[in-house]
Amino acid sequence: MSASGEAVVEAVAARRELVNASVSEYLPIDKPERLYRASRHLLDAGGKRLRPAVTLLVAEALTDTEPLGADYQSFPTLDASGPDEIDLMAAAVSIETIQSFTLIHDDIMDEDDLRRGVPSVHSAFDTETAILAGDTLYAKAFEFMLATGAPPERTVRALSELARTCTRICEGQSLDVAFEHRDDVTTDEYITMVEQKTAVLYAAAARVPAILLGADDETTEALRQYGLDIGRAFQIRDDVLDLTVPSEKLGKQRGSDLVEGKRTAVTLHAAEHGVDLDDLVVSETPAEVTEAEIDAAVAELDAAGSIEYARTLSRDLVESGKSHLEVLPDNEARRLLAGLAEYLIERGY
Amino acid sequence: MSASGEAVVEAVAARRELVNASVSEYLPIDKPERLYRASRHLLDAGGKRLRPAVTLLVAEALTDTEPLGADYQSFPTLDASGPDEIDLMAAAVSIETIQSFTLIHDDIMDEDDLRRGVPSVHSAFDTETAILAGDTLYAKAFEFMLATGAPPERTVRALSELARTCTRICEGQSLDVAFEHRDDVTTDEYITMVEQKTAVLYAAAARVPAILLGADDETTEALRQYGLDIGRAFQIRDDVLDLTVPSEKLGKQRGSDLVEGKRTAVTLHAAEHGVDLDDLVVSETPAEVTEAEIDAAVAELDAAGSIEYARTLSRDLVESGKSHLEVLPDNEARRLLAGLAEYLIERGY
Repeated sequence: MSASGEAVVEAVAARRELVNASVSEYLPIDKPERLYRASRHLLDAGGKRLRPAVTLLVAEALTDTEPLGADYQSFPTLDASGPDEIDLMAAAVSIETIQSFTLIHDDIMDEDDLRRGVPSVHSAFDTETAILAGDTLYAKAFEFMLATGAPPERTVRALSELARTCTRICEGQSLDVAFEHRDDVTTDEYITMVEQKTAVLYAAAARVPAILLGADDETTEALRQYGLDIGRAFQIRDDVLDLTVPSEKLGKQRGSDLVEGKRTAVTLHAAEHGVDLDDLVVSETPAEVTEAEIDAAVAELDAAGSIEYARTLSRDLVESGKSHLEVLPDNEARRLLAGLAEYLIERGY
Repeated sequence: MSASGEAVVEAVAARRELVNASVSEYLPIDKPERLYRASRHLLDAGGKRLRPAVTLLVAEALTDTEPLGADYQSFPTLDASGPDEIDLMAAAVSIETIQSFTLIHDDIMDEDDLRRGVPSVHSAFDTETAILAGDTLYAKAFEFMLATGAPPERTVRALSELARTCTRICEGQSLDVAFEHRDDVTTDEYITMVEQKTAVLYAAAARVPAILLGADDETTEALRQYGLDIGRAFQIRDDVLDLTVPSEKLGKQRGSDLVEGKRTAVTLHAAEHGVDLDDLVVSETPAEVTEAEIDAAVAELDAAGSIEYARTLSRDLVESGKSHLEVLPDNEARRLLAGLAEYLIERGY
């Protein structure tokens, strides 16, 4: 059974507040001040904190502690061989710090001036500072993951997961950039890219707490699969929302992926089923495109079954993700993790 | 006693070949190929490999093995409690990988088109790829440091050293950028910046092998000091060489630091002793400056005692660095480390 959407939203919000307080604590505005202000810029601008919420909920579920009853600085180890104080909040902040570093560098690469409703770091500061802020967060994420107090063998495994995750995120981003210059990308290649660019960090968010708490291999592997599945579902759902959610709710022009010629699960399926993507939208910037033009393009994608394909794909991934949660004790935190998987594809934006 | 300059050059060259072979092995041209080619671009373009040479020589000195007699994949641990196969080459490649990542990102920030006689990564590829290549090497450096086979407690300490080193390099680079916009930088601030931007990686190169091999705290701390001293000496010597080495030997216009208004140990000392830096060189680009103009500026700096100041400072730092080597067994590798310290300030370019 999954927790209701409302319960998930509340659970994520409650943990978000704790994560935000910890970000301020772990990442104070040190000297050089400009560098640290730039490093904190996006972290302070908001964000749902879904990944650290996954980390904390997995810890709660594994240790069978009451949600939010746990002190995130002192989770009990699972096998009684380790210390009784493993600081899962340090791991959660580490994961969010990696996410923030990738957003800062991605915004430079994509020349995006806005993020979370505020100027991106390179816009608010400058490109030099943005590159350095990302590099600083990168190192800090490893420092935080070294500060959980877990036994060294587990810390080494968690760091190994973190390093390999970062490598794969870079590989995924590199594929994403390369796909912009290719006309023959397949849906399979796209899903691989999404897995590397987005899903691996969800996988790390779910797996790392299991490693640090001393869970067995079956459990850590199942949690990795949960993260991979919901991460892919999340991105593919984003592709659909870009087409179906009104612009004012989306916070940007609906269909901007189409206008920008971005390949998505929807458009790649359509291309494989005879739709000519170059003819879908003629306008070349989100500013000049009309709602009627987007409506016509969405109708064509709908007729090709491509929107339904992406919806079904993300739904299947969420079901698969939830099935992996069976390794966890049957408790409220597990129900929230299942609910969170559903929330990722049921959210309106 | 220090090894002769000739012996040091030979020792570094012999280890460089082994490091280069290991770089190819640890960092194959994987997929996405463009990303990995960009990641390897500077590593393949050469470089002295001074930092990994320090790492390997410290390992040889500590374990009292004959220089180059050691198999870098299987160094013996010092205290007999650990395994007999600690791969110091993985650590050496990790340090060099960090160095390469910082060069790639620094070149983007400084808009430098050339590095080691080849186009910088963002020139040979593009800025997006260069950011990602740096980010990939960053993660790989942690992966390599996780692959030495050292006991987990030591691996955790080595990774902690690596992460904190990266944070400090970013802080140092941030100070360097900030100094370009300030007229009141002091020599003390400059030396702090050099320590963070450059010297900490030498410190890590010297300290990490001691940690991994299980040396005591006195030894690891002395080696850290050795690295800090020679790293600072290296940079301050570079500041002098920019003024005194003929352009054709330097590979760039002599005095380009002056033309570009870069603050150095020499110019900051001069400013503190009444020299007006703005009047030193009128030409604004290395292309338009004349040898006569540089000669006049150098004469003024010389008259202020600033060149002698920087020479003495780097010499004192090398002497200090060498004194810290007394914690090591008296062997050939230790003499090479002392000789390497002297080489850093005696090299012609």
